[in-house]
Amino acid sequence: MYTEIDTPSVLIDTKIAKGNIKKYQTYCTDQGLNLRPHIKTHKLPYFAGLQVEAGAVGITCQKISEAEAMLDGDKSNSIKNILLSYNILGRSKLERLKKISERVKLSVVADNIDCIEGLSQAFSDLSEELPILIEVDTGALRCGVMTPQEACNLALRVSELPGVSFAGLMTYPPKSNAAIIMNNFFNEAKKLIESNGLEIKTISIGGSPQMWKAHEVPLATEYRVGTYIYNDKSLIVAGACEIEDCALTILTTVISTPAPNRAVIDAGSKVLTSDLMGLEGHGLIVGYPDLTISQLSEEHGCITSNTSTNLRVGQRIQVIPNHACVVSNMVDHVVFIEDDQVLLHEPVVARGKVW
Amino acid sequence: MYTEIDTPSVLIDTKIAKGNIKKYQTYCTDQGLNLRPHIKTHKLPYFAGLQVEAGAVGITCQKISEAEAMLDGDKSNSIKNILLSYNILGRSKLERLKKISERVKLSVVADNIDCIEGLSQAFSDLSEELPILIEVDTGALRCGVMTPQEACNLALRVSELPGVSFAGLMTYPPKSNAAIIMNNFFNEAKKLIESNGLEIKTISIGGSPQMWKAHEVPLATEYRVGTYIYNDKSLIVAGACEIEDCALTILTTVISTPAPNRAVIDAGSKVLTSDLMGLEGHGLIVGYPDLTISQLSEEHGCITSNTSTNLRVGQRIQVIPNHACVVSNMVDHVVFIEDDQVLLHEPVVARGKVW
Repeated sequence: MYTEIDTPSVLIDTKIAKGNIKKYQTYCTDQGLNLRPHIKTHKLPYFAGLQVEAGAVGITCQKISEAEAMLDGDKSNSIKNILLSYNILGRSKLERLKKISERVKLSVVADNIDCIEGLSQAFSDLSEELPILIEVDTGALRCGVMTPQEACNLALRVSELPGVSFAGLMTYPPKSNAAIIMNNFFNEAKKLIESNGLEIKTISIGGSPQMWKAHEVPLATEYRVGTYIYNDKSLIVAGACEIEDCALTILTTVISTPAPNRAVIDAGSKVLTSDLMGLEGHGLIVGYPDLTISQLSEEHGCITSNTSTNLRVGQRIQVIPNHACVVSNMVDHVVFIEDDQVLLHEPVVARGKVW
Repeated sequence: MYTEIDTPSVLIDTKIAKGNIKKYQTYCTDQGLNLRPHIKTHKLPYFAGLQVEAGAVGITCQKISEAEAMLDGDKSNSIKNILLSYNILGRSKLERLKKISERVKLSVVADNIDCIEGLSQAFSDLSEELPILIEVDTGALRCGVMTPQEACNLALRVSELPGVSFAGLMTYPPKSNAAIIMNNFFNEAKKLIESNGLEIKTISIGGSPQMWKAHEVPLATEYRVGTYIYNDKSLIVAGACEIEDCALTILTTVISTPAPNRAVIDAGSKVLTSDLMGLEGHGLIVGYPDLTISQLSEEHGCITSNTSTNLRVGQRIQVIPNHACVVSNMVDHVVFIEDDQVLLHEPVVARGKVW
């Protein structure tokens, strides 16, 4: 019984995860969209392999070290195509990037001229050009050029430089009005870029909260999505999934009940993290919808109730976190479960990969 | 030069850290207080050894796995005394706790009868009794019994049971009026417990923000403190240290400057964490007091300015995080620096230890 293992533990219900992979792949296939899952949620070559085998065009990694971990751990030799959706800068990172390009079909993103020139210089001695997507900002206010004209300027620069080729556009969507803003940006950028004689092969969009609305952006050719494999409270609240679709839960033990309306669990920010995602409380306690994890310290989660928690010391409960991706990053291994049985302890090989 | 290493990296200025160890040890020695540093901040046997060698009475660990990591990595054989400041429950944890008690002078805390009875049962076959401190709540609303009477009742129960002995009281302080509340609680609890014929050997208090006010709680015999060795933005804001006392910084690279008033660094919540500690922004950029790290995603930190960031792509900056302890927990190794040189890469052996 998985409920007997030591706590806190991060459990992955593999049936649910596999169901989630299939469900969203079916949606993308039906829409004629390439699916390119982001491995940041699971950080496991095993699931990356399953995602590709289910029909994904490749995977997305944010950091070079994530790509290295995926390839090193890919026992089924499924991963043939990686998009690194991050500006890569500096000699040591560029050297590692070149090595990855020898192992897999690689593309990257860039949103500035320093980054593009560095990539060109590093890849100019290779026989194959490195495809670059220009990252554009459609309102998330993170990376990305802010106007179609800037996107066009960078696309032209990429097309002129040796070692690199212009492959298309990429964006991480804003929280609201995403489809409208993206459609406006891409329509204008496409016109500009094509009028300069360049072809846009790929328009890559993404984000889990809006994943079921991908078809509202007709110019998009590819969807990047991470959290959909596990789901979490943020996606329940966003209406993108139900509680039953959540594959990742934290098994935790009540260690103290200092007052009738307060209990303390052995999972704090070192497992759940402080990510609030705009939500109230630090996760959803399965079977106790009225209880709130109202405060975290590193090793303590404080549960409060307006009346009584009805929890007892030693009791084990499961928590659906606000944000699944960051929980995977906190633990050295996750526990695969099926029904009520433990299948295995899986090392999270891409945990902590920030380089 | 340390500024040339790959980013993001967590740097530890060893001179500053050693200075911080000495400074607070001197304060505690002057006050006649036992210092028992919490290893959760550094998670390194090396620094635990230095803390003990400087005069600490022992160390504090929150989880058994932290204590195991400290003892396993203690090359100088300095760690002779550990307080586990956490309710320990369940057969497998109790078995591991017994093994630690064979390696070191061990004490634990407890705030409920289930926990105490479990400890008694586990330790009843050992020749030496396990000292238990009763955890009391002085307003932090985490673990701990809420009244002196409850503390007395548990103390009496501990004194009756085999395998365990009553050693004193322990609390984690509230954020405000800490000394007044603690003095009231301890005065009353001492009266009650001593009138029942029990001796209170230890009264253990702690917390970095109020560390320089430890002398305001005259009944306290011991102070537990973690963050003081590195310090952080939360302690600068609390008035407990200056910028120059901060030993831990994150070296990070500007990867994008999409707008004059916005820049993006390669350190996101996977390094800085989402811990706000009630502060504005996600850390302090050394040398740029007017810039704010206003938003984090996992691999991106967004810096904003009311005017212009004056940062350029490729530039390296150092960030003092809001909360140093949680940053240590994000990385597999930290980089020891002295002046502008890299000394070594030190594995954070107690990282991720939640069991």
